[in-house]
Amino acid sequence: MTALDFSDLFAPNLPPPTARWGGFPTHNFIGGHNAPETIVARQLAECVTKVLEREAQSLAFYNAGHGPQGYLPLREWLSEKLDRQAGIKCSTDEILMTSGSSPALDLVNKVLLQPGDTVIVEQSNYGGMLSRFKRLKVDMVSIDLDGDGMRMDHLERALADLKTKGKRLKYIYTIPTVQNPTATILPLDRRQEMLRLADAYDTAIFEDECYSDLIWSGERPPAIYALDESGRTIFTSTFSKSIAPAIRVGYLVAKWPFLSQAVACKTDAGSGMIEQMMLAEFCPTHFDAHLAKLIARLQHKRDVLVEALNENFGTAVEFTPPPGGIFLWVRFSEKVDTTQLTQAAAKAGIAINPGVDWSVQHPEGNRHIRLCYASASPEELRAGVAALADVCHQTFGIPERSANRTRDA
Amino acid sequence: MTALDFSDLFAPNLPPPTARWGGFPTHNFIGGHNAPETIVARQLAECVTKVLEREAQSLAFYNAGHGPQGYLPLREWLSEKLDRQAGIKCSTDEILMTSGSSPALDLVNKVLLQPGDTVIVEQSNYGGMLSRFKRLKVDMVSIDLDGDGMRMDHLERALADLKTKGKRLKYIYTIPTVQNPTATILPLDRRQEMLRLADAYDTAIFEDECYSDLIWSGERPPAIYALDESGRTIFTSTFSKSIAPAIRVGYLVAKWPFLSQAVACKTDAGSGMIEQMMLAEFCPTHFDAHLAKLIARLQHKRDVLVEALNENFGTAVEFTPPPGGIFLWVRFSEKVDTTQLTQAAAKAGIAINPGVDWSVQHPEGNRHIRLCYASASPEELRAGVAALADVCHQTFGIPERSANRTRDA
Repeated sequence: MTALDFSDLFAPNLPPPTARWGGFPTHNFIGGHNAPETIVARQLAECVTKVLEREAQSLAFYNAGHGPQGYLPLREWLSEKLDRQAGIKCSTDEILMTSGSSPALDLVNKVLLQPGDTVIVEQSNYGGMLSRFKRLKVDMVSIDLDGDGMRMDHLERALADLKTKGKRLKYIYTIPTVQNPTATILPLDRRQEMLRLADAYDTAIFEDECYSDLIWSGERPPAIYALDESGRTIFTSTFSKSIAPAIRVGYLVAKWPFLSQAVACKTDAGSGMIEQMMLAEFCPTHFDAHLAKLIARLQHKRDVLVEALNENFGTAVEFTPPPGGIFLWVRFSEKVDTTQLTQAAAKAGIAINPGVDWSVQHPEGNRHIRLCYASASPEELRAGVAALADVCHQTFGIPERSANRTRDA
Repeated sequence: MTALDFSDLFAPNLPPPTARWGGFPTHNFIGGHNAPETIVARQLAECVTKVLEREAQSLAFYNAGHGPQGYLPLREWLSEKLDRQAGIKCSTDEILMTSGSSPALDLVNKVLLQPGDTVIVEQSNYGGMLSRFKRLKVDMVSIDLDGDGMRMDHLERALADLKTKGKRLKYIYTIPTVQNPTATILPLDRRQEMLRLADAYDTAIFEDECYSDLIWSGERPPAIYALDESGRTIFTSTFSKSIAPAIRVGYLVAKWPFLSQAVACKTDAGSGMIEQMMLAEFCPTHFDAHLAKLIARLQHKRDVLVEALNENFGTAVEFTPPPGGIFLWVRFSEKVDTTQLTQAAAKAGIAINPGVDWSVQHPEGNRHIRLCYASASPEELRAGVAALADVCHQTFGIPERSANRTRDA
């Protein structure tokens, strides 16, 4: 038999094949991982044991008999939690559990988008969503951000412009609460303004709130979903950032006209029930205490990263210390091409996100990098930043000085 | 604010929106559920506890640090199990864990198919795959089955015909080992012949083996994948049928040229790690004993169903008692329209799969129904079949007699 050449059979326009998994790099500043030291094995195991003792036999049924929207007790807890923390009033019928929020993004896109459609997005943005839009051949109109998130004057202009051009906008994609990567929090008045504009231009809003649990102060404006009286907002969040990314439990919240269509388009036969059951058991008792511990830990790591950046890069970089979340968006002077920096860093065992992957428009993106700080220990953070400063100096002559030490040429 | 009419924004050709979940019907013969009485809470809980005690902190990393192909110890066990039970030699690098086998089907289709492509399928077939092909606007060429599964003479004719027409076939989709819905097992010589034909016509084979663990005799021919020396076979299976469908753990096996492309196309950020960890802990110690118990239980339920069908329907139906699996494919006389029967049964609280959903060509499909027998108790199976016979008699006057009792007109 002759070996089959699969490349003859592949669909067109696939992404390049993946490389074999080689483990994490020595200094890992990418990937949205969490703080391992905050995960308590005993509590999780006790919760799984308890729920299995009570209802293991229901696992013999798809979705444990709770229907395609997922485990009901977890949706009940979420309904209460979303009200308490984000002001969202939703019934359990308005929540669809997904295997993390990535499938929720894909599902929303499946329901709404086809090639040639237009979406509005924040200029600096979640790389995974930008790559999805590119793969779907969807046109992105990007809106600038300032220290308060998406600029509403720019949004209004973009909406008017699309209307003039006769283009039908499918939705405004926004990460208003700890924006990825800028970590900005959109104030209440801008949320209200976004809703007013979406209403005036008759479009939907897709609100992605993966990081909103992780705000140091615990204070946040209500979700856009909470302020929306017109049912135009679709909301997604996840337990990946508040508990652990290796458990794949996220969710979509929407009014029934949208959600019933999303459930119909879901082809994965449900999300893992043991993880949903575990969370439903864990959250009412442990979630708040766990979150407080996690937030304190993340804030400390942010402080360590900020200190290490100041020490090693000095004035060669600019950034705003984030009010929450797990990443820091760093701006370099124009002498530094961050795509080139990323490649040089990779060779030295340092993984960073180049700004171009996290930006709609490349020129500005090319001056930024995104650094995730949740999973490394403080020691690893310090060593990683020092190593990155070395690579940056070797490649661009920047930073010229680190702390009190002048670098060799 | 005006309520948004989402129907203006939906992509074209979506499936109809789903109805709100209303629970299972009184008599449930659909859905591929498993036998609840075989699930042992204590064993599962012990396994989760053990693995969490050892490595809970790794959950802070996507895929627990095992990379996008999933939890390595589970892939190690699978590599050994697939060799032992199906003759498949594969490395852990040739296994991709997925959230059940449904996402594996979607992934293979994403890598290979676009609208207008052609696939070869078995005439009676898994409804979920047929609906996928329809949604993808892929042409299906169907091959008849006999008591030994797909007919190779028909396959050869179809391949020659496609070649004449200049149509590029993407793959042959087959469920050779406990076919869904006919429960046939393709003999070794046909497997070899299918590979010979696929080689001659330069196409791929997609082997779906979800039910192969559940054969009463435990005897089965090697997987097509095991016989393939040309790397053209893609293999999928799942723990849904051998352990529980509510845990979403399935897998894809393929040589690297295909698998590296599939991993690249995967957008779900990995499958639930706690369920994979639990299985990796459970399987080496408990899988074989669990399977023996499950098989005995399923065989008993099949016997109950066969007896109930004979008793209630007599000669009004024909079927071959399946050698394994969880479903029975029942053929009615031409007087019975099974689509109409399904609707009448639904009104009486009885859910059955109409043959048309499980068939490529409707005329023959419309004489069949699929009955799943794993999840109901023996008492429920008997009551369900009796209720179905009543509905069938009321609708079509068939069966005329049940056991020793003549039915009222």
